[in-house]
Amino acid sequence: MNITNPSILPGFMELLPKDQELFDSVKEIIEENFKKYGYINIDTPLIEKEEILLSKGGGETSKQIYRIDKEKNPQALRFDLTVSLARYVSMYSQNLNFPFRRYQIGKVYRGERNQKGRYREFYQCDIDIIGNENLDLINDAEIVSVMYNIFNDLGLKNIVFKISNRKLLQGFLESIEINKTEEIFRIIDKFEKIGKENIISEFKKIELEDKKIKEILEFIDNFSKNEDILDLLKSKKINNELYSLGVYELETVYNYMKKFGVSDDSIQIDLKIIRGLDYYTSTVYETFLKGHESIGSICSGGRYDNLTNNFSKKKYPGVGLSIGLTRLFYYLKEQNLLNLLPKEDIVLIIPMDKKTLDYSITIVNELRKNNIRSQIYLEDTKVKKKFSYANNIGVKQAIIIGESELNENTITLKDFIIGEQKIINKDKIIDYIGGKNENYISR
Amino acid sequence: MNITNPSILPGFMELLPKDQELFDSVKEIIEENFKKYGYINIDTPLIEKEEILLSKGGGETSKQIYRIDKEKNPQALRFDLTVSLARYVSMYSQNLNFPFRRYQIGKVYRGERNQKGRYREFYQCDIDIIGNENLDLINDAEIVSVMYNIFNDLGLKNIVFKISNRKLLQGFLESIEINKTEEIFRIIDKFEKIGKENIISEFKKIELEDKKIKEILEFIDNFSKNEDILDLLKSKKINNELYSLGVYELETVYNYMKKFGVSDDSIQIDLKIIRGLDYYTSTVYETFLKGHESIGSICSGGRYDNLTNNFSKKKYPGVGLSIGLTRLFYYLKEQNLLNLLPKEDIVLIIPMDKKTLDYSITIVNELRKNNIRSQIYLEDTKVKKKFSYANNIGVKQAIIIGESELNENTITLKDFIIGEQKIINKDKIIDYIGGKNENYISR
Repeated sequence: MNITNPSILPGFMELLPKDQELFDSVKEIIEENFKKYGYINIDTPLIEKEEILLSKGGGETSKQIYRIDKEKNPQALRFDLTVSLARYVSMYSQNLNFPFRRYQIGKVYRGERNQKGRYREFYQCDIDIIGNENLDLINDAEIVSVMYNIFNDLGLKNIVFKISNRKLLQGFLESIEINKTEEIFRIIDKFEKIGKENIISEFKKIELEDKKIKEILEFIDNFSKNEDILDLLKSKKINNELYSLGVYELETVYNYMKKFGVSDDSIQIDLKIIRGLDYYTSTVYETFLKGHESIGSICSGGRYDNLTNNFSKKKYPGVGLSIGLTRLFYYLKEQNLLNLLPKEDIVLIIPMDKKTLDYSITIVNELRKNNIRSQIYLEDTKVKKKFSYANNIGVKQAIIIGESELNENTITLKDFIIGEQKIINKDKIIDYIGGKNENYISR
Repeated sequence: MNITNPSILPGFMELLPKDQELFDSVKEIIEENFKKYGYINIDTPLIEKEEILLSKGGGETSKQIYRIDKEKNPQALRFDLTVSLARYVSMYSQNLNFPFRRYQIGKVYRGERNQKGRYREFYQCDIDIIGNENLDLINDAEIVSVMYNIFNDLGLKNIVFKISNRKLLQGFLESIEINKTEEIFRIIDKFEKIGKENIISEFKKIELEDKKIKEILEFIDNFSKNEDILDLLKSKKINNELYSLGVYELETVYNYMKKFGVSDDSIQIDLKIIRGLDYYTSTVYETFLKGHESIGSICSGGRYDNLTNNFSKKKYPGVGLSIGLTRLFYYLKEQNLLNLLPKEDIVLIIPMDKKTLDYSITIVNELRKNNIRSQIYLEDTKVKKKFSYANNIGVKQAIIIGESELNENTITLKDFIIGEQKIINKDKIIDYIGGKNENYISR
């Protein structure tokens, strides 16, 4: 028979069991928090009509898309979860309850250039709150607290949510009589990546006067305490409605983030935050790990008022945040920042020989009846091999059943961590086996 | 702006939130059982190289496959999880611990003709146990008990696992000097679908003598108690090694299924069970819901000795079972067979007006700190609208905060089920809010 060399395509992440377990722990912490905060899951097809995916027009997306070579309907794999959400909300609005708080965790596809930490198939973990015609500003604050708690549960203490408001910046630009808003946003968006000097030369390319460049830079590149920034913004004599509204929104969101439990240390008002995608209309967020800024933003999003414009004449304003899980996991592992214990260990039952098999089965049945994650070693091999299997899969507790256990209606419980073992009466097993850890524990 | 009509492709399942919640409950019950029985998750790419997917050769699969129109590497969406498992095991065998017990729950793609209950994108929920060179027969019994408990937890009491053994049937055919095994297997496989009369005419088409047809039918179409069938099989004077081995295996698997807790009522030895796919080598299973046989088998699988043949010269025998979740869900819902309560309800906090918002936020923070799934209604609308939202999303408990609650440091807890409400001191909330149901409860 012909042997096909087993391999996967470049740019795809595939994990060995131990790493997969770690990845799943991260994913579960994310999902549990989404649920805890009252978001509900939706699960849309991975394949969408091309006219839906590209309804905003082609551009970069169109080049990166994974097209399906099938039938007459042009179709492709989704490149994010947001387009599908907009389509879903427009399609089923009659059957949804607004504000509609949905989460979705799923794979998306982009044919990006293959490079470190970039994957062509990756998980996005999205939460969005969608209103019908209106959506209160406080939602922009609450949604951050979900992500804040997720990063806390992941043991990532040095998190900073950088927030800004596009209305504020736009109002400011209007006030100094600059109308190239879109181009300027596009340039400022690259600030972190290319640095101040390059920003200045980009500004010059679009023929901005030196005086204006200076004004913009002074306005945006302004790091101090959040309260001080807000005081400064309020003290400016800028007579522009959009500006005033932006400042009010930013201040409100900032204050309510704290009320929802986000520590002030973890918030940084930063007027350089833009978010490239043009559908954001006011609040915008990016999230960085202090000391690991080179990873880039690990959780981004913002407020959009016109998400469903391409699919509906009605207005569904929303606010959303997204974690690119696959890339985040890659970096957290690479930089050794993940210290999670699995939620529940497997208890292994080891029958010493065929004679003790049936008795061992009654024990594993009992454990499972009590919802204890357990496995019985069924192979009829040497004892040494059985113990090395236990070691290799990393069990912390094993139950060993030999003839004396069988005869005396007991079990031997071996603790692989402290290296002890004790004999326990069969009736008392459940009291001794602590299968479930109360919570994920950082080591 | 142009409006694109929001729609999805035909043959794809997409659910509204209430149904999605039900679907997720089913999926979670499946996954929790997989974990409880010691299976570990792997997550392979949805896109595989075409040479991997079609390594067994083309045929029907090749026609149904979803090809990706991208780059030079021919690639396509997986049509099942088994090929990826075989590729994974062959690729990483050095890093896996055998027996390797893996589960995978994921979407697969087949361009099937669009018809009731058939989807082009559907979830498969697979468990497999893979050995290195050898895998004990008892695994064939234990693996069924996982699925048995899943169906029990789903409240599906009338489940029947039909089991057979291909060696046994092959040995029998050899013993009556028939060598068209493959063709006969293919015909018997259709028994449930096309009935006895059509089976006979199909046998005639391959030029089987009437006497042989009669012998085969007497052998396979033999419904009685499991013990009686086994006694009969053992009493037959058939001098064929394969036959004897098959009978021994079938009896052993049957006996151990019971020891692993599968009720005898839920087992039916049925020699007509073949499983079309040619990689099964001995034990085969299909699963039916009594009274709903027309749905077809809801969980199928078997033992295969040669799974990785296309990718490796080493031998990794395995046994596996799979649930086609999307189709199963479709039928269970259609036939009204799903009676699951969600594991955890959302508690809704309703501030009566803006003045009570901050106090309400302290309460939702407290609930979430205690891992209680909760949501605060943030829109500044009429009270009537707030209550109708609570009703529409189906909350069972709501916390209402008006000025008196704010002033007296209390909350009003409204129970939407029994229609009562009571005032509770703020410190005592956690005692009163039972967010988590202990388990999934059948109504």
